[in-house]
Amino acid sequence: MQAVVLVSGGMDSATLLYYVVQTLGYDEVYGLSYAYGQKHDREVVMAKWQCEQLAAVKDWRLVDVSVLGDLTRGASALTDRGIEVPELAALAEDELSQPPTYVPNRNMILLSLAAAYSESRGCRTVFYGAQAQDEYGYWDCTVDFLERLNQALSLNRRHAVQIQAPFMTMRKVDELRIGQELGVDYAHTWSCYRGGEKACGNCPACVERLKAFAEFGTVDPVEYE
Amino acid sequence: MQAVVLVSGGMDSATLLYYVVQTLGYDEVYGLSYAYGQKHDREVVMAKWQCEQLAAVKDWRLVDVSVLGDLTRGASALTDRGIEVPELAALAEDELSQPPTYVPNRNMILLSLAAAYSESRGCRTVFYGAQAQDEYGYWDCTVDFLERLNQALSLNRRHAVQIQAPFMTMRKVDELRIGQELGVDYAHTWSCYRGGEKACGNCPACVERLKAFAEFGTVDPVEYE
Repeated sequence: MQAVVLVSGGMDSATLLYYVVQTLGYDEVYGLSYAYGQKHDREVVMAKWQCEQLAAVKDWRLVDVSVLGDLTRGASALTDRGIEVPELAALAEDELSQPPTYVPNRNMILLSLAAAYSESRGCRTVFYGAQAQDEYGYWDCTVDFLERLNQALSLNRRHAVQIQAPFMTMRKVDELRIGQELGVDYAHTWSCYRGGEKACGNCPACVERLKAFAEFGTVDPVEYE
Repeated sequence: MQAVVLVSGGMDSATLLYYVVQTLGYDEVYGLSYAYGQKHDREVVMAKWQCEQLAAVKDWRLVDVSVLGDLTRGASALTDRGIEVPELAALAEDELSQPPTYVPNRNMILLSLAAAYSESRGCRTVFYGAQAQDEYGYWDCTVDFLERLNQALSLNRRHAVQIQAPFMTMRKVDELRIGQELGVDYAHTWSCYRGGEKACGNCPACVERLKAFAEFGTVDPVEYE
């Protein structure tokens, strides 16, 4: 069974990779990562490492989509060095539905590239690790969004690719439980949105991650400032 | 009124540009063109030229999406130098629904990038020049496809961009009629899929174009082999 798996290098996608191979039994997996000008490009190193741990992963590919950073310059704290990544606690109520770390239409772009790659390779399925955050959210990480994107992709007359996000309705702590059972090494994942040496512990990504580890009752192996 | 207009440099998008500015009255237009490793990259020069003719076009931008060519290597005659662009007459019946010139998921990728650019600039509308060919077709050039993509984009919580393709249900000859009335200079457009000095006259794009000019009863100003 063939599939393309989007691997960002964060907790969600590392868990997904193991889940697709070990739980779902896919034995020919193509890992795909993106460099889109994100400040936290360390995650890409982790993505590669995770792919190298599994024999079922036949290929890992890093795709340069820095064009995304160029086209959205000034519009996101994730790609613009002039905009600071906020602390989760500092976000106003009305920012939670679309925080400054949102990159305009990012997921549609990354998923449509993955679908093109999948179609070109003859794969029917793209897996991606979207997970509904507890505290905030993005419109392009919702079940509705994925459903509508799949409805568009299903119109393909020859080789319709579908995107699956098995963790979409799970909480991060449930994902962590799955990953621990499957032996994911979370020391080799990166979540922090800031570009520092160690994880900051305060940005939205760090807060969500630390919360999941606390709830699960274990220590996050990643170093924090 | 602000809008992003996708300008490929072909007949359809040149006509669209004039239509958006002169007929619909948009006075702040951002032209967007793509270099995606297509053999017929001469069209990009034409796209720039067309944008320079209208004062309402405030900016023209060429975006390098050669990543699309990389990801779909071997899967399309439009981007792979090892695959020949076929003559329209040589296409088998079952190839007409998805000819070898089809690039996997190209339009979803290009439109989602345009939507990201539009959102970043604060524009609500992206215009693109899809037109239903008479003789063959692509699933990602249909009314259904656009509708489903717009349904996905409409989920955006802050700034939903919508894509409009006013020529989608028109025939090429109807477009030509509109363009002639608006003063489009078709000598500065490029349609041929092959990378030659002159247009070939036999590829699917040339055949459709020549047919439209013949039906309209005028001579195509572009030079043919």
